[in-house]
Amino acid sequence: MKKLHHVVIVGAGFGGIQTAHHLKGANVRITLIDQHNYHLFQPLLYQAATALLAPSEIAWPIRHLLRKRSEITTLLAKVNDIDKFHKKVFLENNETIEYDTLVLATGARHAYFGNDEWANYAPGLKVLEDATDIRQKILIAFEKAERETDLEHRAALLCFVVVGGGPTGVELAGTIAELAHHTLSGEFRNIDIQKTRVVLIEAASRVLPSFEESLSAYAMNALEKLGVEVQLGKPVSECNALGVVFDDTTLSAKTILWAAGVQASPAANWLEAETDHVNRVKIEPDLTLPGHPEVFVIGDTATISDESGKQVPGIAPAAKQQGQYAAKLICARLQNKTNMKPFRYRHYGDLATIGKRAAVFDIGWMKARGRLAWWLWGIAHIYFLIGVRNRIVVAMHWLWIYFKGDRGARLITQVDNQSSANENTIPNEIKKDS
Amino acid sequence: MKKLHHVVIVGAGFGGIQTAHHLKGANVRITLIDQHNYHLFQPLLYQAATALLAPSEIAWPIRHLLRKRSEITTLLAKVNDIDKFHKKVFLENNETIEYDTLVLATGARHAYFGNDEWANYAPGLKVLEDATDIRQKILIAFEKAERETDLEHRAALLCFVVVGGGPTGVELAGTIAELAHHTLSGEFRNIDIQKTRVVLIEAASRVLPSFEESLSAYAMNALEKLGVEVQLGKPVSECNALGVVFDDTTLSAKTILWAAGVQASPAANWLEAETDHVNRVKIEPDLTLPGHPEVFVIGDTATISDESGKQVPGIAPAAKQQGQYAAKLICARLQNKTNMKPFRYRHYGDLATIGKRAAVFDIGWMKARGRLAWWLWGIAHIYFLIGVRNRIVVAMHWLWIYFKGDRGARLITQVDNQSSANENTIPNEIKKDS
Repeated sequence: MKKLHHVVIVGAGFGGIQTAHHLKGANVRITLIDQHNYHLFQPLLYQAATALLAPSEIAWPIRHLLRKRSEITTLLAKVNDIDKFHKKVFLENNETIEYDTLVLATGARHAYFGNDEWANYAPGLKVLEDATDIRQKILIAFEKAERETDLEHRAALLCFVVVGGGPTGVELAGTIAELAHHTLSGEFRNIDIQKTRVVLIEAASRVLPSFEESLSAYAMNALEKLGVEVQLGKPVSECNALGVVFDDTTLSAKTILWAAGVQASPAANWLEAETDHVNRVKIEPDLTLPGHPEVFVIGDTATISDESGKQVPGIAPAAKQQGQYAAKLICARLQNKTNMKPFRYRHYGDLATIGKRAAVFDIGWMKARGRLAWWLWGIAHIYFLIGVRNRIVVAMHWLWIYFKGDRGARLITQVDNQSSANENTIPNEIKKDS
Repeated sequence: MKKLHHVVIVGAGFGGIQTAHHLKGANVRITLIDQHNYHLFQPLLYQAATALLAPSEIAWPIRHLLRKRSEITTLLAKVNDIDKFHKKVFLENNETIEYDTLVLATGARHAYFGNDEWANYAPGLKVLEDATDIRQKILIAFEKAERETDLEHRAALLCFVVVGGGPTGVELAGTIAELAHHTLSGEFRNIDIQKTRVVLIEAASRVLPSFEESLSAYAMNALEKLGVEVQLGKPVSECNALGVVFDDTTLSAKTILWAAGVQASPAANWLEAETDHVNRVKIEPDLTLPGHPEVFVIGDTATISDESGKQVPGIAPAAKQQGQYAAKLICARLQNKTNMKPFRYRHYGDLATIGKRAAVFDIGWMKARGRLAWWLWGIAHIYFLIGVRNRIVVAMHWLWIYFKGDRGARLITQVDNQSSANENTIPNEIKKDS
């Protein structure tokens, strides 16, 4: 009996999961490797970071999602290297996995434009641990302020800076402002919570720079209504324990959150591949590595342009479309079909929320803003969540917040909020006993 | 103007929160100190440890619970010592808080009968961090087993030992057995999850030794139906990295959970008070420290007997009754009333669940077991949860588990699962900047 074609997928984000999904029924066996045991719904990660949702409401065990697919083996493991010539993936315990086809969908991490030391002061938001760390950081700042008697220190504790005015930055700043000015209202005795400052700093000349201009203007206005101070055209030149420096201004702030830049995972290094300036692998129009048609690189790990020459954005729908394309091409090859067209990205739209009753929504033929956009945003995201139960619970939380304002997940639980800030997010525990 | 009488409450568990609750309307100001920012619904902690519920579904921010009580100041802080002669509480940063009346409701931690080193191998379940640690430990054991090729090691990874057959031990063992034999069914490719062993070890001659004998027998039977191996009359003599030793038997197990004994918090040391064998403070019939009528010690921190000479049990209803009594006595004194009767404990009943469709329920005039008891147990617990939203979400999870079987909170998120095992659960972050 001929051995089944072996597809190894690294990364169970939107790209990896879609690849596995669309390989259903193909005559292959699949190994899916991820360093976490869950698939994360990243677009709602900022809500976990701001105590709106619980981590388990936006993440699902990979094994459970794929339990009915007996041809898929899921491994909780960290990839250390790849030998593209001998078609091997090396795991952190020196275990080796051979592949016939490899799909790399390892995503991205935040980047600090060459100032990696800023990571200590300005955590970014990419994995679930980031969200619980940031949630803890925000909630503890208020607790410390309540006990602080020095007025200058107290003001620094009550100053929250978000660096970067893209969708994540706008959403973070909006929800922190609501947390301070509405949710926590009346809960403290020594501090005036209304004096909390939320400052959003963006280097470009408008927030949501990738959106249409009128939507940026609307978002800007909505942020200011929520009490967010927006600083435009001001690149940050320093982040440290005291605060942030931008445009020759120094702002004392104990909480700085980073939403300004990303860089791809180390996949390019494993492949020794050509990359762009943020380490994304340059790929062929069929999403494969040049010279290695058996290696796909998709999602935030890769860079590719659409037909108009514009770069495919690093968002969930793009990764999903690429995962689907990779799966279809793998199937086509197994059936010796050679008529697959190159990958073509379809942009369905742009979405961002600003607090709990405003949003911008642009799907080309329809633009919306305000409450209607918020409802459309909500419905779209509920639709894309996995599982009926999660949809019900998240919808209920949102309706609750919408009408009542209080949040459900305001727990300070982690003892050491530095421990998970590093890249190596796989628990030591899982490394094989030596 | 005369300064208001200052009541300091240490601990925001059932006892402390009830005290604050029943002081409503009294002419006092209150400071409530806890080392966590949340009030925990401890009776459901085992469900967070076994991935049935999310941490935020069984815990609520203390500030939020008390936000409408402007006379209450909530402090996230750790108490280091007390000067009962000068009526002072010392916080971890040397801050001092003076009181007129002190209520100590600091609870208990697990105890290892003098073998503290067992804590490294057999974590117990008292605070929220314990639950996420244990959840991680259980889920990682399965992940490691899936990657383990040595059959003996694999068997040890798939062997879960629960030490102690009281309600917590019975509930833990039952839910782990269901997790392994039902929830995870079909999700692994290399291991036979049905071969998972769950062993419950109890030193007494029956499980639930504090319950009526017929209920113990029923629980024993229900556990065995779920596939739990119950070992009775066998005290554990050793816990280490390889497993557990009891009755001259050595059992290889990588996961050992401790539900066998508790000891009171260090409150007795602060007070230099007389204690029983598990460090509980011996108190007067009015719940105060002998010689110090201004110091109340309630809940698991204290020991007291009811009218029949039987010790008041360390359960939530007892702590709540004591909190209510302390508040009423404080009010009576402020009004110069001296006719308060001694504290009288009313035992409303015993409850325990064994897996998702069996329970025992004994409220004196009514005993139930089986499905009816499970529903009564569920309704009772939903009733005692705080907040309409939590009631809805938890009820929905339970009905889901009841009818569908899958669990909602199977995340492995903490990187370092040792870090929070120590006593000092207050984040370093909150310690005042020096």
